[in-house]
Amino acid sequence: MIQYSEYLGYVAAILTTIAFIPQVILVYKTKDTRSISLPMFILFCAGLLCWALYGILLFKIPIITANVVTLSLSGYILYMKLIEKKRLSRKQ
Amino acid sequence: MIQYSEYLGYVAAILTTIAFIPQVILVYKTKDTRSISLPMFILFCAGLLCWALYGILLFKIPIITANVVTLSLSGYILYMKLIEKKRLSRKQ
Repeated sequence: MIQYSEYLGYVAAILTTIAFIPQVILVYKTKDTRSISLPMFILFCAGLLCWALYGILLFKIPIITANVVTLSLSGYILYMKLIEKKRLSRKQ
Repeated sequence: MIQYSEYLGYVAAILTTIAFIPQVILVYKTKDTRSISLPMFILFCAGLLCWALYGILLFKIPIITANVVTLSLSGYILYMKLIEKKRLSRKQ
């Protein structure tokens, strides 16, 4: 039962990590982040940073890896959102 | 050290869960999901479902709670994205 749940944990971690790849591709192609929430990505990136530090404190490589990868992907989306916000505020 | 990391884990879980609240509010107010990726939310919701099942198998209430809450919020965004996709395909 433990082994089965371990596999499920890995599947879960892989899915919630790779989920951000299509969002990164969409933002990269369209440069459109209008319907993406800035506070969401600020909170999410802060949370992922805490998860990565948590993994470092516990010396758990899967926690560190999954969160550093997701943080890189989410960080790119946050960066693009901030660029758009800056561009829109200049226009006004 | 263990206690400190436990707190960090809770902070991380809270941040990555509440992060979806501003996104839900934005989608609810604007009904705009154009720059949100459909494959992202399909993969993310599937991953959260696996995390919740993982929590159930391990009898870990914090894992179940965090993932069921995030799944509800992400599920709403996915539902709104699907509605928009249906509406747009009807227009064409």
